[in-house]
Amino acid sequence: MEENTIKQETPQFGKYDLIAELAKYFPNANASTVVGIGDDAAVIAPNEEHVVSTTKVFMENVHFDLTYVPLLHLGYKVVTVAIADLLGMNAVPTQVMLNVCISNRFDLKAVNELLEGVQACCDNAHVDVVGLDLSTSRKDLIISVTALGECEAARMVTREGAKENELICVSGDFAAAYTGLLLLEREKKVFESNPDVQPDFTGKDYLLRRQLRPEPRLDIIEALRREDILPTTMTNVSDGIAAAVMQICKASHVGCELFEEKLPMTEETFVTLKDLDIVHTVAALNGGDDYELMFTIKQSDFEKIKNIENISIIGYIKEEHAGCHIVTGDNVHVELHAQGFKS
Amino acid sequence: MEENTIKQETPQFGKYDLIAELAKYFPNANASTVVGIGDDAAVIAPNEEHVVSTTKVFMENVHFDLTYVPLLHLGYKVVTVAIADLLGMNAVPTQVMLNVCISNRFDLKAVNELLEGVQACCDNAHVDVVGLDLSTSRKDLIISVTALGECEAARMVTREGAKENELICVSGDFAAAYTGLLLLEREKKVFESNPDVQPDFTGKDYLLRRQLRPEPRLDIIEALRREDILPTTMTNVSDGIAAAVMQICKASHVGCELFEEKLPMTEETFVTLKDLDIVHTVAALNGGDDYELMFTIKQSDFEKIKNIENISIIGYIKEEHAGCHIVTGDNVHVELHAQGFKS
Repeated sequence: MEENTIKQETPQFGKYDLIAELAKYFPNANASTVVGIGDDAAVIAPNEEHVVSTTKVFMENVHFDLTYVPLLHLGYKVVTVAIADLLGMNAVPTQVMLNVCISNRFDLKAVNELLEGVQACCDNAHVDVVGLDLSTSRKDLIISVTALGECEAARMVTREGAKENELICVSGDFAAAYTGLLLLEREKKVFESNPDVQPDFTGKDYLLRRQLRPEPRLDIIEALRREDILPTTMTNVSDGIAAAVMQICKASHVGCELFEEKLPMTEETFVTLKDLDIVHTVAALNGGDDYELMFTIKQSDFEKIKNIENISIIGYIKEEHAGCHIVTGDNVHVELHAQGFKS
Repeated sequence: MEENTIKQETPQFGKYDLIAELAKYFPNANASTVVGIGDDAAVIAPNEEHVVSTTKVFMENVHFDLTYVPLLHLGYKVVTVAIADLLGMNAVPTQVMLNVCISNRFDLKAVNELLEGVQACCDNAHVDVVGLDLSTSRKDLIISVTALGECEAARMVTREGAKENELICVSGDFAAAYTGLLLLEREKKVFESNPDVQPDFTGKDYLLRRQLRPEPRLDIIEALRREDILPTTMTNVSDGIAAAVMQICKASHVGCELFEEKLPMTEETFVTLKDLDIVHTVAALNGGDDYELMFTIKQSDFEKIKNIENISIIGYIKEEHAGCHIVTGDNVHVELHAQGFKS
């Protein structure tokens, strides 16, 4: 072998330099963050007994459409979505790790925009970004977000443990994000057939915001602690109320009865769905992207739950063989159905 | 609204049923696993002070090529690669979470094969699979693996802290996986130009195995504990020796001198690289996919390190302004170069 022929790759602004540069977006603030971006792995020293963890993968043209999703909002939303699964265990999010796979369709400005959105959501949720990796994708933008959180062992809540007669609660309102998506898809089609037509979203701000830039419901986790309410079960509602309640019922071996009239929905959502000729209850049951929380509480917590804003009691737990139903406005019992394969 | 028109999706074998079915591959064995697959997020109760975490994304036709990578081996390898970053912190891996994004090109048998590979590696490494999610991809197979591990605070090792005159050690041997990749790529081209020609890999088993089914070097982490050696810095070697040593030097603000003759390589790798007309030292410095460990130790640990098999001392740490060099067989000093952007 010819020793003097040790040819190596030309030095250049490398991946690790770029990551180090981008890491400046993410100074660490949480005491539990020991090692952040820049080493082999992130290291945390949790304050609580339990570490809660989840990973979500977001793929362009499967989970998001960059024709109408600004990268800034996308960065915000991927953090909300990942965090939502930790909140669904009654945990407090503390760190996230980010893998961004980009093709040559994207420049550094695009990456910066995405990361600014990530930063904004992490700031709001007091979460440190402790991992950042970049990869080359063939064409589509692909983002993987891992969220880490903490929970006192005694406050952790799974989907298992709901008992007959307990109350089924949800935070916020439903179907707004789904309705926002329908509007965006409609205007995309209009634009594609006639690029001169400008999209008209007058008065639809809330619907678009719920779709494009949903907020993590950390306030609910904090309020439950403040009011000293420990839900018996809990889950993040990402695929509609029906899927969420059926997951709780399945894991807890119980049935349920929901009341159509109790499903929370804003006037704006209701009116827009009517315009779109969509039954609003179906949208609330099966529409996705709400990232609200569903939980069950003992009847003895009924007075305390009233102290928390933005909580609706939408039904109650029944015995298992009663099945899962929703009672319509004219007192018809309709069986809830599980959703099929959804990404 | 017409109450009786609450039409819902037809019940079918859903995503969550499939995940529940596939979860049977992964019974949890570690005491620290509190909640595994099937709830909003995984929950662990670490035994040690520090939780170490990393996420890797693997994309078809970027990180792997299914024309010659069997799904069984792919499943094994993605776990090895994710775990390797935890080992690079001197941590013990305990849990992994998996996100698999598949298109309709893949059937359930393919998913099963992939997960069997995941299971095999997790079994070998005594790691629990605590998260499993499936998504629809447009075409390519995309896999995200998050690995979680634990480390006593006092045994955690970062890339920072190497001091002048310390010894630079690596586990195993190098360039075998890179050479295996070259062989696979060469035979793929032969096959594409003439599908009647069968690939000839006689005597290349080790090279192919290092590329297709690398082993996590958990044995090294265990041996370091057994011999009571605490490295001063440590990193996983995934992109060649040069990138790894320069990352340690950069983080530690030191320089280094490596010796070409000390770089460990098997005869099989050496001979095959010669046949392929590639300078073997370049392959060891810049070839990827080794997933071996590099670490620095105090000179006082020199006697103890000899008790661990498969460790080579390849150089030593110098002061920062000396830079990073490799000394060739005929005593020429060649400067090491950083690699450019690599996925």
